[in-house]
Amino acid sequence: MTQPTPLPTPPYYAVIFNSTRTSTVTDYAERSERMMELAAEQPGFLGVDSARGADGFGITVSYWRDEESIKAWREEAEHAAARADGRAQWYGSYTLHVAKVERAYDFTAPSAE
Amino acid sequence: MTQPTPLPTPPYYAVIFNSTRTSTVTDYAERSERMMELAAEQPGFLGVDSARGADGFGITVSYWRDEESIKAWREEAEHAAARADGRAQWYGSYTLHVAKVERAYDFTAPSAE
Repeated sequence: MTQPTPLPTPPYYAVIFNSTRTSTVTDYAERSERMMELAAEQPGFLGVDSARGADGFGITVSYWRDEESIKAWREEAEHAAARADGRAQWYGSYTLHVAKVERAYDFTAPSAE
Repeated sequence: MTQPTPLPTPPYYAVIFNSTRTSTVTDYAERSERMMELAAEQPGFLGVDSARGADGFGITVSYWRDEESIKAWREEAEHAAARADGRAQWYGSYTLHVAKVERAYDFTAPSAE
């Protein structure tokens, strides 16, 4: 099973992307997977968590060292092209929140250790 | 379809809860729904977005006016009891990030308006 990204030591940044998918999605899965791979190669990338329910509503949270790494990822050319395709084809709506993580906690059940 | 929470004007806070569910879940759905209702009644609550995939990994992001409202929600008795049950029964692991939202954007496809 997917596990949450291990916790870096705050402060760092989280980019929260909430989206609804359109019903006419074609190559979304491959492009989405490619973006995850590409993000992981960027300076300052700390991790990403993603979940999408059967109703098409999804949340992806990516974690970054600082504002500069978020800005550089935003300007990465292949990512910019994917965002344009996303607005044109894949997403009915989305919201994006950029937030500074101030503290973080984790828990693992004794039976899962 | 579920839609993302409309954007308040930053700054405000986001609590990002990433979790894996155990396979022995019994009354999770009702308790989870009850917690969403109870959260919505709290002072300073701005909204909540939630998605869980078929693999059991889920993300819930709740939005709050300030640190004080997050602290009060944390101390709410029924919520505290649900968290204890969550650790004992529902969650294999989780991470929690408390983050200050600095900026936010949204998008709605022309065809979805």
